[in-house]
Amino acid sequence: MSAAASDQQFMARALELARKGLYSTHPNPRVGCVIVRDGQIVGEGWHARAGEPHAEVHALRQAGARAQGATAYVTLEPCSHHGRTPPCADALVAAGVARVVAAMQDPNPEVSGKGLLRLMHAGIAVHSGVLEAEARVLNAGFIKRMEHGLPFVRVKLAMSLDGRTAMASGESQWITGPEARSAVQRLRARASAILTGADTVLTDQARLTVRPDELGLGAELTALAVTRPPLRVLVDGRLRVPLSAPFYQTGPALVATCAAAAARDRFLGDGHELLAVPGSNGHVDLRKLLMELAGRGANEVLVEAGPRLAGAFARAGLVDEYQLFVAPKFLGSSARPLLDWPLARMAEAQELEIREIRAVGADWRIIAVPKRPV
Amino acid sequence: MSAAASDQQFMARALELARKGLYSTHPNPRVGCVIVRDGQIVGEGWHARAGEPHAEVHALRQAGARAQGATAYVTLEPCSHHGRTPPCADALVAAGVARVVAAMQDPNPEVSGKGLLRLMHAGIAVHSGVLEAEARVLNAGFIKRMEHGLPFVRVKLAMSLDGRTAMASGESQWITGPEARSAVQRLRARASAILTGADTVLTDQARLTVRPDELGLGAELTALAVTRPPLRVLVDGRLRVPLSAPFYQTGPALVATCAAAAARDRFLGDGHELLAVPGSNGHVDLRKLLMELAGRGANEVLVEAGPRLAGAFARAGLVDEYQLFVAPKFLGSSARPLLDWPLARMAEAQELEIREIRAVGADWRIIAVPKRPV
Repeated sequence: MSAAASDQQFMARALELARKGLYSTHPNPRVGCVIVRDGQIVGEGWHARAGEPHAEVHALRQAGARAQGATAYVTLEPCSHHGRTPPCADALVAAGVARVVAAMQDPNPEVSGKGLLRLMHAGIAVHSGVLEAEARVLNAGFIKRMEHGLPFVRVKLAMSLDGRTAMASGESQWITGPEARSAVQRLRARASAILTGADTVLTDQARLTVRPDELGLGAELTALAVTRPPLRVLVDGRLRVPLSAPFYQTGPALVATCAAAAARDRFLGDGHELLAVPGSNGHVDLRKLLMELAGRGANEVLVEAGPRLAGAFARAGLVDEYQLFVAPKFLGSSARPLLDWPLARMAEAQELEIREIRAVGADWRIIAVPKRPV
Repeated sequence: MSAAASDQQFMARALELARKGLYSTHPNPRVGCVIVRDGQIVGEGWHARAGEPHAEVHALRQAGARAQGATAYVTLEPCSHHGRTPPCADALVAAGVARVVAAMQDPNPEVSGKGLLRLMHAGIAVHSGVLEAEARVLNAGFIKRMEHGLPFVRVKLAMSLDGRTAMASGESQWITGPEARSAVQRLRARASAILTGADTVLTDQARLTVRPDELGLGAELTALAVTRPPLRVLVDGRLRVPLSAPFYQTGPALVATCAAAAARDRFLGDGHELLAVPGSNGHVDLRKLLMELAGRGANEVLVEAGPRLAGAFARAGLVDEYQLFVAPKFLGSSARPLLDWPLARMAEAQELEIREIRAVGADWRIIAVPKRPV
């Protein structure tokens, strides 16, 4: 095998390890590491939870003395700064690693490249950019937050083949089947925050929780997901949802509203936080809310809302990815639209790039990303 | 190879030959034939056009004396009656064929099984049902007409990912790209009749013709398609479309309307036929129209219409297949629906079975068939 092919093979394994952190590393990125000596893997590690050792430390521990002269494959540039744990670059140097291959540099502009430089200065051969595209997809949220101060916004919608999300009456439960609902559970579990609106909470009695038995994951990942539940965020500009709603009874939530002062204590008393992010149009300022969430470390935000709130995110250009779960049925022309988003001319249409279409049980999942105006 | 596997292999070749007739055999079925002797193909044939020899005759001619003791694979039971050509069963007997394998029996209840019986009585070994499902798909229209006196109705719709077919203004041209339009041209060319409504003809100046240069077929099939243009049918209950419209200037058409008497001569003078099929609701009776088309030998009808007429076919339960060409864009919530079909409750939703989803250029084609109530 060529050196490039074997680099890719070991990096693919490191990415596989990194993916184990999909549900639990928030606010940190998902990172995997493989230590290879004489063509054999002698150490593997992945980051599981913030505050716990980084991937490199786990892998070096497993490798022990065999790390001497070995190559380390890491899915993200090793850190060079003291955070809650010591810098991984120093650990790699101390272990006597001869070569470090990174999938990508750290997206944080303040530290990007510093870890690799530190390794180089210690005489270690350094290479970056192996399977970079795959590594960027895995941490799209962390990257977006570091580069733009905003989380990656994923909008999930369940629709019929004719693009409808509910009957005119609001009836909408069980459009899609159990496999699709399980996939949505995994989308929830990987998100830093799940965001919904008053309509959804009032109409569907939605709680937006992660239900361990519906995740369809193994015991290890389920346990990790459960210990790191996503923040539940309710956009409720006029505080229409009563504190007695199942949503509030399930656990603490963050409520984004237009004027919070008067009600703050009442919500705090029940364990919830009120956040005032008034917009100029009488609605919650969604961009400000997302910046606030990013400030709290949110990498990925899952929007599970009705056509009104989802449409507001779309209109504001705040959506990074749509996940459409499509049920093989027609709900008809009086049913509710996918997004409340009135457009007059074809030239205003939102162009999309379809990334994936695949069967999920009897339904289909379409992953599409908005094309930004050129 | 087992006998069954080799039967399937030769039948697959016969089906491949039969498909060459996709655009030209109307009102006949598409049929292919392969003559095999000592494991070698010694004759091949397919039916090209009504009035010309059947597949078996072509294949027997090519085989000549080698047909003696051979096996004939035919995608449809050989005919036993004198039509425009002599019975193929007799020709197979005369040629001394030892064995006949058919993919399926003739769907015409009046003659089904008679061809095979005739062969059996002549001492020929007979077997039916090899690749039957594939053979039925190829002639779904012919089968439906023979069994139910109705054509197979395929509804083609071009829509956005949010299920919209046009802006509220009616603006709708070029939702999908050139590859999708070429696929639609082939759907037109294979149909016995193309059916549209006054809205489409008035708004889009539609002509519903087959354009040879957009078919994307080889020279042979293009030539065959051109010599057998589909009948163009306009549903225009109140004769709103003027005779000066491009649709009427392109060639003869059949116009289905509610009361035809007064205008008949005027349309006839321009080479068009008026057909009165009034329904009880002031609209054209679509089922009666389809029965009339079946009476004229129409196997497959392609409906290319706006949400109103397409919705009327859907509501009446007359649709056998939807072909949805989906463009990767959102047209928004004020754009026109896929089908005018108001449904109040989720229980009324039209359940569908998705048969195929595949990329067509930058667009996607979804083939879905309605699930009949159990």
